Amino acid sequence: MRSPRDKVIITCAVTGNLTTPEQTPHLPITPEQIADACLGAADAGAAIVHIHVRDPQTGRPSMLLDHYADVVERIRARNPELILNITTGPGGRFVPSQDDPKVAAEGTTLMPPEKRVEHIAVLRPDICTLDLNTMNSGREVVINTPGNVRRMAKVIAEAGVKPEIELFDSGDIALMHDLLADSTLKGPVLCSFVMGVRYGFQPAPETVLYARNLLPQDAEFTAIGIGKAAFTTVAQSYLAGGHVRVGLEDSVYLSRGRLARSNAEMVTKARRIVEDLGGAIATVAEARKIVGLPGHSAVSAA
Amino acid sequence: MRSPRDKVIITCAVTGNLTTPEQTPHLPITPEQIADACLGAADAGAAIVHIHVRDPQTGRPSMLLDHYADVVERIRARNPELILNITTGPGGRFVPSQDDPKVAAEGTTLMPPEKRVEHIAVLRPDICTLDLNTMNSGREVVINTPGNVRRMAKVIAEAGVKPEIELFDSGDIALMHDLLADSTLKGPVLCSFVMGVRYGFQPAPETVLYARNLLPQDAEFTAIGIGKAAFTTVAQSYLAGGHVRVGLEDSVYLSRGRLARSNAEMVTKARRIVEDLGGAIATVAEARKIVGLPGHSAVSAA
Amino acid sequence: MRSPRDKVIITCAVTGNLTTPEQTPHLPITPEQIADACLGAADAGAAIVHIHVRDPQTGRPSMLLDHYADVVERIRARNPELILNITTGPGGRFVPSQDDPKVAAEGTTLMPPEKRVEHIAVLRPDICTLDLNTMNSGREVVINTPGNVRRMAKVIAEAGVKPEIELFDSGDIALMHDLLADSTLKGPVLCSFVMGVRYGFQPAPETVLYARNLLPQDAEFTAIGIGKAAFTTVAQSYLAGGHVRVGLEDSVYLSRGRLARSNAEMVTKARRIVEDLGGAIATVAEARKIVGLPGHSAVSAA
Amino acid sequence: MRSPRDKVIITCAVTGNLTTPEQTPHLPITPEQIADACLGAADAGAAIVHIHVRDPQTGRPSMLLDHYADVVERIRARNPELILNITTGPGGRFVPSQDDPKVAAEGTTLMPPEKRVEHIAVLRPDICTLDLNTMNSGREVVINTPGNVRRMAKVIAEAGVKPEIELFDSGDIALMHDLLADSTLKGPVLCSFVMGVRYGFQPAPETVLYARNLLPQDAEFTAIGIGKAAFTTVAQSYLAGGHVRVGLEDSVYLSRGRLARSNAEMVTKARRIVEDLGGAIATVAEARKIVGLPGHSAVSAA
Repeated sequence: MRSPRDKVIITCAVTGNLTTPEQTPHLPITPEQIADACLGAADAGAAIVHIHVRDPQTGRPSMLLDHYADVVERIRARNPELILNITTGPGGRFVPSQDDPKVAAEGTTLMPPEKRVEHIAVLRPDICTLDLNTMNSGREVVINTPGNVRRMAKVIAEAGVKPEIELFDSGDIALMHDLLADSTLKGPVLCSFVMGVRYGFQPAPETVLYARNLLPQDAEFTAIGIGKAAFTTVAQSYLAGGHVRVGLEDSVYLSRGRLARSNAEMVTKARRIVEDLGGAIATVAEARKIVGLPGHSAVSAA
Repeated sequence: MRSPRDKVIITCAVTGNLTTPEQTPHLPITPEQIADACLGAADAGAAIVHIHVRDPQTGRPSMLLDHYADVVERIRARNPELILNITTGPGGRFVPSQDDPKVAAEGTTLMPPEKRVEHIAVLRPDICTLDLNTMNSGREVVINTPGNVRRMAKVIAEAGVKPEIELFDSGDIALMHDLLADSTLKGPVLCSFVMGVRYGFQPAPETVLYARNLLPQDAEFTAIGIGKAAFTTVAQSYLAGGHVRVGLEDSVYLSRGRLARSNAEMVTKARRIVEDLGGAIATVAEARKIVGLPGHSAVSAA
Repeated sequence: MRSPRDKVIITCAVTGNLTTPEQTPHLPITPEQIADACLGAADAGAAIVHIHVRDPQTGRPSMLLDHYADVVERIRARNPELILNITTGPGGRFVPSQDDPKVAAEGTTLMPPEKRVEHIAVLRPDICTLDLNTMNSGREVVINTPGNVRRMAKVIAEAGVKPEIELFDSGDIALMHDLLADSTLKGPVLCSFVMGVRYGFQPAPETVLYARNLLPQDAEFTAIGIGKAAFTTVAQSYLAGGHVRVGLEDSVYLSRGRLARSNAEMVTKARRIVEDLGGAIATVAEARKIVGLPGHSAVSAA
Repeated sequence: MRSPRDKVIITCAVTGNLTTPEQTPHLPITPEQIADACLGAADAGAAIVHIHVRDPQTGRPSMLLDHYADVVERIRARNPELILNITTGPGGRFVPSQDDPKVAAEGTTLMPPEKRVEHIAVLRPDICTLDLNTMNSGREVVINTPGNVRRMAKVIAEAGVKPEIELFDSGDIALMHDLLADSTLKGPVLCSFVMGVRYGFQPAPETVLYARNLLPQDAEFTAIGIGKAAFTTVAQSYLAGGHVRVGLEDSVYLSRGRLARSNAEMVTKARRIVEDLGGAIATVAEARKIVGLPGHSAVSAA
C-alpha cells in the first residue's frame, strides 16, 4: 500500500472543453482571462496549470494556435516558472448518424492525429495531455485508437514535451502498459484517472485504489473528479498517494449549490483539504522535480 | 462479501466472432457443427450455449438469419430445454481511415441498431447478448452508443428475450445502471464481464471483485476470461459469487500449448474446477430459475 | 459500493485511557474538565461524546463510579440531549510475566466481565462501548473472550443501553457476526474500526473498505484513526460511508507538530473536513435517529 | 497486481494440533504414521511438509523432542531432500478462569518462549513456524507477545532455521513489519495467512488480496484455508500470486461430506487445482531456491 505523498502537486484546469458559459459566469474565455485564471491559480498554490483555449467571441472551444500562443505568452511574462500543461484532447469526437452510424454526423471533430498536436510541436509546453480513451462520452463517441495515439505520442516526444496520460477507464491503463512496452512512452509516466465522465471510471475510493494498483510502480498519478466528485476526489487521490486537480474544467461548483467564483478559489479549497489531511503543497520547483521536468521551463526560454 | 453460489451455471460460447479456423482445426463452422458443439457442451454440463454463426464456405463471421435458424432448429430437435443465448455483437465495428479517421475504412461493419437484432425478433431465443461497450478492440473500434443500445434493447424487450448485458469495462456498468434507471432494462440483470480484450477489463481477481461490487445487489454475473485467462477466470468468477463461461469463442487452448479438441472438453474442465472448489453445476432447469426464464424454451414451442 | 452519508455523526472521545498528561497539557482530567470538554465538543459539532474518567489527583485512568456519575450529571445539567457514550474498556489488560507468561504481572487489570459494566448498569447512558478484541496492544495483552463479551453484552442489554461495538481487527468482525447470530447483539449494529493500535487494523483507505465490506448491510460504522492517522481517517471514514470520531483519546496533535488545544478544536477540524467533502454534520436529534436511540436521553430523565 | 507464480510450492500439514482422532480415522498419530504421511504427501507433490507430533497412546498433541526426532529421522532415511517445517505453535494457549480471568485455568499451555523452540535448536529443521498472533482462538486465548516472539525468533535465527511467519489477522502483519525493521527477522520473509480460525482472518478472495498487499514486496506467501475453505483457498492463494497448503491439520474433508483418506489425497487435489489454473508444482529443489534454503537439508547432514 502507498502512503500519501509528502509533497502534493495541485493542477488547475481552468477552462476545459465541455464547461459552457451558460453554466457559470466565472469561466475564463479570452486568452487574457485564461492567462489570468492560470496566474491566480498559481498564486493560490497550483504548480501546474492545464490549458484549453476558446473562441473569444463565442466562448466555444477552439484549437487556434494563436490563442494558445497568446495565453502562454501572457503567463510567461508574469510567471516564467509555472508548469504549463496544454491539452491535445480536441479533435477526437465522432458523432454517429442516426440512420447510418458509420457516417459522421454534425458535431464530429475527429481529425488526423498529427493535426491535434500541431500546437504542441510549435509551443513546446512543459507538459501536454495524451488521451488514451475510446469511449462513449455523453451522447458522443471519443475515438483514440492505439495507432493514432502512437502517432500523437511521436510528435510529442520529438517536441521534448512530457505527456500526461489521461486514463478514462481500466482498459486505457492496459494500453498505457503496451505503449511503455514498445517505448512509445518513456517511464516514469505521469498520468491521470478521469473519474465521473459518463461512461468511464466512476468516482469512489475503490476506483482510485483499483486503478492505482494497475499502474507501474514508479508512476505519478492524479485522480480527477468530474462534477460533484471534484473535491471528494481530491481527498481520495491524496489518501491513495496521488496528486490533485481541480478547476472550472472539471466542476463549476465550490460546494453544493454554490458556484466557484474563480479557479483560484477552487485551488484554495483543494489546498485546505490536502493540508487538513497532513499534506504539503509542492512548489513549482518541487513539482518540476517530481514530474521530471527541467528546472526551467523550455517555453520561458523561447 | 459474497460467497460462492451453490449452483453455478456454465455457459459455453462455442465459436464466436474472432476466433479463426487458422487458430484451431476444432472450431465449429457450419450450422451442423455449431449445433453439435452446443449439444456436446450441454452433455458435458453447460446449461446455456452462446451462439454465433459463420459462413460455412469461408468460416468467416456471418449474420445470416438462415444460419441462426438452422442452428436453433438442429439444437431444438435434439434438446428442447437447453438455454439458447444468441449474439447481437456483429455490426458494431468501426475502422477509422488512416488519413481521415472520421471516415469509415474497410472492415467497418457498423450498422443501424435495429438491423443487429433482426434475428432476435424472429427467432426469440431465451437470451441474447447486448454489448454496452464503445472501446478500442484490437486495431478496430467498437461503437455501441447509449442511444443505439436503447434501440436494440427495445427490440429485445418486445421479443420477450432476456438480455445478457456484456460489460467490457467499468464505464459500461455505469451505463447499465442508467439503463436500469430509465427502465430500458428490467432487473434483476444477467450480465458478464469480458476480461482480457485489448483494451477493456484486464483479468485479475481484483478486477472481478471491483466490477462485481459495482453491480446492483440482485444481479447475476459471469466473469469471462479471454485467451490465457480462460480457466483462471472460471475460478475467480466462481469464488466471487459468479457463474462461469468457457468455449472456443474465448480461447482455443485447454492448457498451455494444448489446443482444446472440443467445446465439450472445455466445459468438462470448467466443471472440474468448479466442483473441486466445492460448487455444483446448475442443471438447465435450475439455470432457467436462476436467470428468470420460463421453464420451457419459448423457441421450442415455435 | 456505498456513497458518503448525507448526515455524518461526529463523536468526540475527550480523554480516553492511554493518553497521558505528559503528552499534552490540554488533557481533561477532573470530572469537571471532562464534562467541560464534552460540552465544548458538542458546541463545535459533536453529537456523541465518548467518556472515560481519570483520577483527579494522578490523572491516571479510573473506573470509579462516582467520577462517571459526576461527569454525567455535569453534562446533563447543561445539555440534556447530548448523546453520552461511556467506555467499558478498562479491566481488560493482561501483562504476562517475563519468567512465566501464564502468570499475570504488574499492570494487569483483567477482571470479571460484570465488574467492567457495573457503571453502565447504574448510569444507563445512551451508548456504551463493547470491545471485541483479544490482541497485543503495545507490550500488553488485551483479553476479551467471546464468553466474557457475551456476559458484558447481557448486562448492557438489560440496562437498555445501545452498545457501540469496537473492532480492532478483522477477526473481531467475525465475532460480531456470531454475536448477532445468537442474538447476543441486536442489529442494526453501531460499530467502530479502531485503526492504528499496535497490533490491530492499520490505517489506510484499503483497511476501511475491507472492514466495511465485512459488516452487515445495515450497520452504522465509524473508522477511528489513532495517532497521526486521526484526520486522514476522518476523510476515509466519511468517503466510505461512515461517521467520524476525533478527540484527545485518539491523538494529541491537531496537525504535524502542533498540539490540539482542546477537543473542540479537533471537532472543528473534523467538521471542516467533512463539510469540505460535501457532508453535513448530524445534529443530536438526527444522530439519535440514525443510531436508533430514543428522542430523549434515558439518563436525562433520571 | 501480481500474477500467479510459475512454480507453486505445495506444503502439506499432515496432522497439526487441533484435529482430533474423533474427527477422522485417517489422522496420522504415531511418529511412524506422521513420517509416512509426510512421505506420501511428498510423493503426491508436496515440497514442504509441516510437522506436529502427538502422543502415540492418546493421540493428543505432544511437544516431546523424541517424537519430533523420530519423525525427522524416519523421513530423512527415505527422502533426505524433502523440506521439513516443524511447528513452534504449542505452548501459547491461555484459558482465563471463569471467576477471575487473569488466573490461568485448566487447558492453559502458555510457557516461556525459549521452551517452545527447544526442539528447533536441537533438530534444526529447514523451516519452523513462528506465530505472531494474540487472539481469541475458539474458547481459548492464544498469546504471543511481541517480546516473546522476539525471544523465539532469536533462538530460531541462532539455529540457522528459516522461520515461516504465521499471520492470523492484519495486525500480525504490522508486527511482522516491526520485526523486520528491528532485524529480528531477515527478509525476504516466508509467511502464511491462516484464514478461517475463529476469530482471525476469514476466508474470501478479498482477504487474500488485502493481506497480500500489506506484505513487503519480496515476501513469499501462502494463504491457508481452515475447514471448508481449504480448497477454495488453494485457488485464491494461487491466483493472488501465492503458494498453497493443505492437509489434515487444516481440514478433514476432501469435499463436502467426504473425509480425505490421506494427506496425499489432499495434495493430489490441490495439485490438480493449481495445474487446472495453469500453474506448475515446484519440485523440492525449486522450492528450496524460492524459499532461500540451502540446496541440501541441514538436517540430512546430521
